[in-house]
Amino acid sequence: MKKSVHHFNPENVSSINDLLDEFAKTGVFGGGNLGKAKDILFKAKADGAKVFLSLAGAMVPGGMRKVITTAIKSGMIDLIVTTGANITHDLIEAFGVKHLQRVDAESDQELRERGIDRVYNAFVPETGFPNFEDNIKILIDEFYETKNKEGQLITSSHEFLSWLGPKLKDDESIVKVASQYSVPIFVPVIADSVLGLQIWLRSQFKTIIVDEMRDLEVIQNYFHDSEKTLALIAGGGVPKNYMLQSSLMSDKDYQYGIAITMDRVETGGLSGATLTEAVSWGKLTWESPKVTVYSDVTIVLPLLVTAWVEESQHKK
Amino acid sequence: MKKSVHHFNPENVSSINDLLDEFAKTGVFGGGNLGKAKDILFKAKADGAKVFLSLAGAMVPGGMRKVITTAIKSGMIDLIVTTGANITHDLIEAFGVKHLQRVDAESDQELRERGIDRVYNAFVPETGFPNFEDNIKILIDEFYETKNKEGQLITSSHEFLSWLGPKLKDDESIVKVASQYSVPIFVPVIADSVLGLQIWLRSQFKTIIVDEMRDLEVIQNYFHDSEKTLALIAGGGVPKNYMLQSSLMSDKDYQYGIAITMDRVETGGLSGATLTEAVSWGKLTWESPKVTVYSDVTIVLPLLVTAWVEESQHKK
Amino acid sequence: MKKSVHHFNPENVSSINDLLDEFAKTGVFGGGNLGKAKDILFKAKADGAKVFLSLAGAMVPGGMRKVITTAIKSGMIDLIVTTGANITHDLIEAFGVKHLQRVDAESDQELRERGIDRVYNAFVPETGFPNFEDNIKILIDEFYETKNKEGQLITSSHEFLSWLGPKLKDDESIVKVASQYSVPIFVPVIADSVLGLQIWLRSQFKTIIVDEMRDLEVIQNYFHDSEKTLALIAGGGVPKNYMLQSSLMSDKDYQYGIAITMDRVETGGLSGATLTEAVSWGKLTWESPKVTVYSDVTIVLPLLVTAWVEESQHKK
Amino acid sequence: MKKSVHHFNPENVSSINDLLDEFAKTGVFGGGNLGKAKDILFKAKADGAKVFLSLAGAMVPGGMRKVITTAIKSGMIDLIVTTGANITHDLIEAFGVKHLQRVDAESDQELRERGIDRVYNAFVPETGFPNFEDNIKILIDEFYETKNKEGQLITSSHEFLSWLGPKLKDDESIVKVASQYSVPIFVPVIADSVLGLQIWLRSQFKTIIVDEMRDLEVIQNYFHDSEKTLALIAGGGVPKNYMLQSSLMSDKDYQYGIAITMDRVETGGLSGATLTEAVSWGKLTWESPKVTVYSDVTIVLPLLVTAWVEESQHKK
Repeated sequence: MKKSVHHFNPENVSSINDLLDEFAKTGVFGGGNLGKAKDILFKAKADGAKVFLSLAGAMVPGGMRKVITTAIKSGMIDLIVTTGANITHDLIEAFGVKHLQRVDAESDQELRERGIDRVYNAFVPETGFPNFEDNIKILIDEFYETKNKEGQLITSSHEFLSWLGPKLKDDESIVKVASQYSVPIFVPVIADSVLGLQIWLRSQFKTIIVDEMRDLEVIQNYFHDSEKTLALIAGGGVPKNYMLQSSLMSDKDYQYGIAITMDRVETGGLSGATLTEAVSWGKLTWESPKVTVYSDVTIVLPLLVTAWVEESQHKK
Repeated sequence: MKKSVHHFNPENVSSINDLLDEFAKTGVFGGGNLGKAKDILFKAKADGAKVFLSLAGAMVPGGMRKVITTAIKSGMIDLIVTTGANITHDLIEAFGVKHLQRVDAESDQELRERGIDRVYNAFVPETGFPNFEDNIKILIDEFYETKNKEGQLITSSHEFLSWLGPKLKDDESIVKVASQYSVPIFVPVIADSVLGLQIWLRSQFKTIIVDEMRDLEVIQNYFHDSEKTLALIAGGGVPKNYMLQSSLMSDKDYQYGIAITMDRVETGGLSGATLTEAVSWGKLTWESPKVTVYSDVTIVLPLLVTAWVEESQHKK
Repeated sequence: MKKSVHHFNPENVSSINDLLDEFAKTGVFGGGNLGKAKDILFKAKADGAKVFLSLAGAMVPGGMRKVITTAIKSGMIDLIVTTGANITHDLIEAFGVKHLQRVDAESDQELRERGIDRVYNAFVPETGFPNFEDNIKILIDEFYETKNKEGQLITSSHEFLSWLGPKLKDDESIVKVASQYSVPIFVPVIADSVLGLQIWLRSQFKTIIVDEMRDLEVIQNYFHDSEKTLALIAGGGVPKNYMLQSSLMSDKDYQYGIAITMDRVETGGLSGATLTEAVSWGKLTWESPKVTVYSDVTIVLPLLVTAWVEESQHKK
Repeated sequence: MKKSVHHFNPENVSSINDLLDEFAKTGVFGGGNLGKAKDILFKAKADGAKVFLSLAGAMVPGGMRKVITTAIKSGMIDLIVTTGANITHDLIEAFGVKHLQRVDAESDQELRERGIDRVYNAFVPETGFPNFEDNIKILIDEFYETKNKEGQLITSSHEFLSWLGPKLKDDESIVKVASQYSVPIFVPVIADSVLGLQIWLRSQFKTIIVDEMRDLEVIQNYFHDSEKTLALIAGGGVPKNYMLQSSLMSDKDYQYGIAITMDRVETGGLSGATLTEAVSWGKLTWESPKVTVYSDVTIVLPLLVTAWVEESQHKK
């Protein structure tokens, strides 16, 4: 059956849901895919699917902290796989130091001399890392003491962050909110971050073992226990692959898929790989509603979360 | 003065203007740039600047037709520089054939055999081009007869499209609406399109000369007569460069600049060139508020037009 | 029949042809496509196909001038469709001013104040445009006098550049070499360049009409007269589309296709459109050997031309 | 001092070193950066710097296996940080199954039904993973028995792969060759791969603990023990960040930097982040010779390794 291209009509839009519906109706190009992403999210939620979010990058310096916490609080997402960077920057703010939009400096060398770290056009001020280290080392040691009196501690990112959440005083913290709402966070390689380096530093004094196998077990159990699942993939890298592979040992697949990325398919890398490629691996079903939005995560993720919150409040 | 990264708050959003304001407040990454684009647009409009839009690509198959006509009708834009493709596809629809979202076909070879042309995931159906040709040749001949009884016609894209607009019956046509609202359209190389090929075909029988110098004169006059101007650059290519160079012979520059593109800077091409590079050429002033949004035009342009329409209606 | 991925073996490489053959044998990813491009080029040449090159951008500031002239002199290419920028920058050098690799300047504003124009990380020095203008205006006026004593001149980019070539003293000039070797150059919109602005300036005093229809006629004749053709597409934009559409009115198609681009398919634009999409339009045959190399033109084009020259010299 | 853009001259090229020198001389755009990468590599080697390679993606299906082993054998690289995918695919081939260039299949669903896994345009045949699993489980169990009779094993990717290398019969294996040449391989998150899933499976029966902290300690020691170092970054993701952060706890930095990537800077992600951004973090010195080549790793890495091998043989 033939279906015409609908022309996006600005006059039809008086809410974020209208906006995304109007995009969906066009049916084509980037705008069409953006609208389809909302449709798949809402359909998956209505179908009772659990939403597993993979989140690459350093999204806290990018202003996405409250987008994530709102997604958690509103019941939009059920599980997070992310980077050590995202957790490190969340904790920097949780310990009281805000990232900066603007720093007047001539060069990265000047930034270095002043102790300021740059993440594209966002900045960690001078006080950020020293304050982070002062705070986190006390907490790591406390974690060590609490969990293990026998001189050895085998743990995992998920276990540590679940413990850490309630200790934080900042109600806006992703780590804290996730633990409050029982949304597990997995950091497949916490060692790959400043947080990881701090854990390593403490492990020089008190044996701390972060066992990769432990998280791998737990995330597969979460997948196994979820009847239906939507893979919501924000960016690429390890979080994307690690989340998708959680279905490999299962006889189920992800039933819904949304990917948001600027990566491209032609390098052959997993970050830019299509969701149909994931079908060949048995990660997603062929019949899965699925879409890739080729756009910036910091544009698309806020739109999806805002649409979800708006719809949730409307229903009340 | 230090300014913290603001975290996008979905709860703050109950309109498209709220949405873009919330993006603007983050101040960083892609979301921050998207918000800044709205700020610059509104500031330029408040300042009385004329908005010159360069529009690359084939945006009608991409569902952007009404976005453009709404931008014209609402007074958001004052001049358009675009491709022959955009005009050709607008006319295909003006002559009664809609583009399609979906065609079941095994391959591009099957499409070809069925006479269907593909533009990424949009399609011109079998009837599109034959019907276009039947209609346009009559109009080209009529244009010829009207304008020139002496056997020779020197014209330009702008002149032809101004004449053509009122002849069209489709009230949604970009060409028609632009002529109704006196928004000039320039197609720097109308020869580079199926429309151009049809003009060439008719020029075999009746001398039609499309003089590149004529449009070049007229667009520079428009620039000269506009005290202040915003360059709103949607995509790259000839439309971008042609619009920006209209300031080169003038002692003024564009005072505001917004670019929306997925092209990248590292190839050295003009399409991905930064707006600060344009400063070195004297196209934009150093002090110009300016921003490049690295995102899909079919996502960003509808957002800007919708925000403008929403604000305009609110003010009434 | 199954074919294994070959692993690129550096030990097998002792020439540029070896290099590209080794890439071709891998058969996959970017390297495989690069190798395939050489295979198609050589196969097309062996088959007697004419090679039509579309060349976007400003490639002279990018160090590609001699790559183009060598491709012409060695008989690799038969026709060029390009931008006004490429011609303008070729003439800047032909008139004696070299582009610069490096300029110490704090900002684009400083460049502007010093009269230096930037093209990514290449620069037109202070003397470049004034010297260009001094020289070109004399030549434009001479062209006018020569071609037309009756007060009106209807011309085209191809006609002007054919006339201009022999007037130039620089043996490295693309325009000069092309005219020496009877390789026609088409600039579909010469108005879209500083050269175009100069022609326009002179046309204020002496009527010069650059008729778009004229080149359109001539390029179609070239296509018609070539039994077989390879479309060698370097970058996107108008040159790509204009060259490909030269087959639309013909009952032939391009039989070979090579595209080199960093543009991506998902925006829906022609620049990133696949060569199979071109099949649906009847520009390329389904059976055409064809490949897109997703890489920088300034890397891939020199490789292809060097391989061709090396092979040509080897055969002697 | 002013330096003109050099125009790449195909006639100057009769070796891969000539090729890259010619690119370097242009000094601009993508070609110039490619040439500069060779200059930095050779300069770093001449300076006695250790070369640490970060290698993202699944490069074995992309035909890069022998490029890596040749780089090891020729003494070009001293340490590798990579993904579990790269190791998994290396082992698939080491156990006797080759990746395929081409599979005739209608869809990813057909591939799935046939047990074939796709990596862009390369394929793991039906036998690939079953054979991998049969072989690797024996080796994992043997590793377990060898290393630990006490019922518990704490290990790391580096330790496991060092042990595994000599067990492999395939002389082309990256893992084997690396162990032969004492080039350590780090996989910061071996759990994120099919290999990792197999280790996890075996850990159900016999306790295997892969401790993230262990590799983190060892790689920092390697960095500490290397007087001078070149960060050779092929692709982004965890390998890039993990390798660069190995300097954070040290009072030294990387002194040379080469990045090859198609990722872009504007998303704010680490994969596309510039090497000057790394200066602000203290990973690279401001004075470091450094360059980013925006191109496909499967094109650029073979060029650099081939140039190195050619030069090494020439010197003999």
